[in-house]
Amino acid sequence: MFQSVAICGVGLIGGSFALALRQAGFSGEIIGVSSPATIEKATSLGVIHRGAPLEQALVEADLIYLAQPISAILDCLPRLDAARPEALITDAGSTKGAIVARAQRPNRRAQFLGGHPMAGKEITGVAAAEASLFRGRNYFVTPNSPAELETPAAIEFLDLLAKIGAVLRIASPADHDRTVAFTSHLPQLISTALAETISTEFGDKAEMGAGPGLLDMTRLAASSYDLWADILATNCNEVNISLDLYIAHLTKVRLNLQNGLKKEFTIASSFSKSLRNR
Amino acid sequence: MFQSVAICGVGLIGGSFALALRQAGFSGEIIGVSSPATIEKATSLGVIHRGAPLEQALVEADLIYLAQPISAILDCLPRLDAARPEALITDAGSTKGAIVARAQRPNRRAQFLGGHPMAGKEITGVAAAEASLFRGRNYFVTPNSPAELETPAAIEFLDLLAKIGAVLRIASPADHDRTVAFTSHLPQLISTALAETISTEFGDKAEMGAGPGLLDMTRLAASSYDLWADILATNCNEVNISLDLYIAHLTKVRLNLQNGLKKEFTIASSFSKSLRNR
Repeated sequence: MFQSVAICGVGLIGGSFALALRQAGFSGEIIGVSSPATIEKATSLGVIHRGAPLEQALVEADLIYLAQPISAILDCLPRLDAARPEALITDAGSTKGAIVARAQRPNRRAQFLGGHPMAGKEITGVAAAEASLFRGRNYFVTPNSPAELETPAAIEFLDLLAKIGAVLRIASPADHDRTVAFTSHLPQLISTALAETISTEFGDKAEMGAGPGLLDMTRLAASSYDLWADILATNCNEVNISLDLYIAHLTKVRLNLQNGLKKEFTIASSFSKSLRNR
Repeated sequence: MFQSVAICGVGLIGGSFALALRQAGFSGEIIGVSSPATIEKATSLGVIHRGAPLEQALVEADLIYLAQPISAILDCLPRLDAARPEALITDAGSTKGAIVARAQRPNRRAQFLGGHPMAGKEITGVAAAEASLFRGRNYFVTPNSPAELETPAAIEFLDLLAKIGAVLRIASPADHDRTVAFTSHLPQLISTALAETISTEFGDKAEMGAGPGLLDMTRLAASSYDLWADILATNCNEVNISLDLYIAHLTKVRLNLQNGLKKEFTIASSFSKSLRNR
């Protein structure tokens, strides 16, 4: 049983994981590794018990949860060699190839197992954290081989994910990155390009034609580039492929505007409804 | 004061307009012109007082609200010459150029004034109607010239729109069609093409990578082609222009994936937030 959990990066995801753990019955200590201001806020909100420097947290924790931005996770990985041999290190980064590759360290004693919760909100920061954030949401775990899921620490971690209500998805890092290029990164870029196109074309006057559909389609566009620069940089090839394919489909839609798009609408409508009925 | 309103096509929009009128204090009679099954349902739900054939409703009504699909509105317009001279005919069709052009009839005595409420839901039909559907939503009114807004019937209609909580937007039919090509028709096609691309590429396996963002971006894709075939057919040129421009922006995004998209994200984020703060 995990007795002590270190959360590195106590923001929306890290904070929500801490709250979800407690709600699922975890009674051990939750240590935050974050900036002094965040530690103070997270402690006063009752999200973590206390803060500690990374080096000290590593000596104590048997579950180390990396919930920083991707570039901070990449910077952090070489500093985890001192983690306890029986501990599990996992992360919540939105791309997995670069992180899992960087995590291969001959001198580290603890196991690393990559992860990616498909959860989020428009607002970030620990004040927005909630215990139910992962409930009913896909949660990727990305071992290099199935044997990585059979260690005692991995078995306990997967059990924890089930307890916090996440829908477990096992995939290789490469399969993960290819899938989310289409299901997450492509939608983000489509939304950003839509908002940018309309803003450039109409400016504020676009408001007069805004309905519920435009609000849906531009919600993701509000996301900050700070977060997305890391994601795009670490999944550039797959995102490029997904954009290329999407532009080809959209060009076909444009060519068929007059000839009818019944087939496209039928496939799309069926897909949209099946996503909602799962 | 309007004493009697005829709603042609008592579905989500027509039914909601009837409910909104009553909630705004309208105490006259509301006559439905629709299929027998719809009339029975709408009457039992208390949305309309009774049904009548079009010819009979025209003799009685002083506000005639066309809320059918666009092709049915186009078919209906030549049959309205018998409407009372002091009556106002308006419609709720999603494109305006074709409808307003068809409405030019030398022998019709009543005024025609085109309209388009930017409201809707995923579910259609009178059972989904609600009095608050137009509240806070843009509602286009599209005169050919400003003088059309100054007749007694038009003044009363605009006053009614304010009472049901709609945000009045005045535009020429051509400006309306150009604006909604970008703010409504383009978002629909983008959503349809996204769902179709992912469905074609991954099938049901896409579910494993679905998060809240994909759900937002594929909600419009659930729409039925029956509705959209009419919209695209009557706004083909403007939609074609908007798709062309969007594909150019998206291609630029793809080319800049590596070089950074800070400018695009900044413009898009600012636009998305301003839409939500109005």
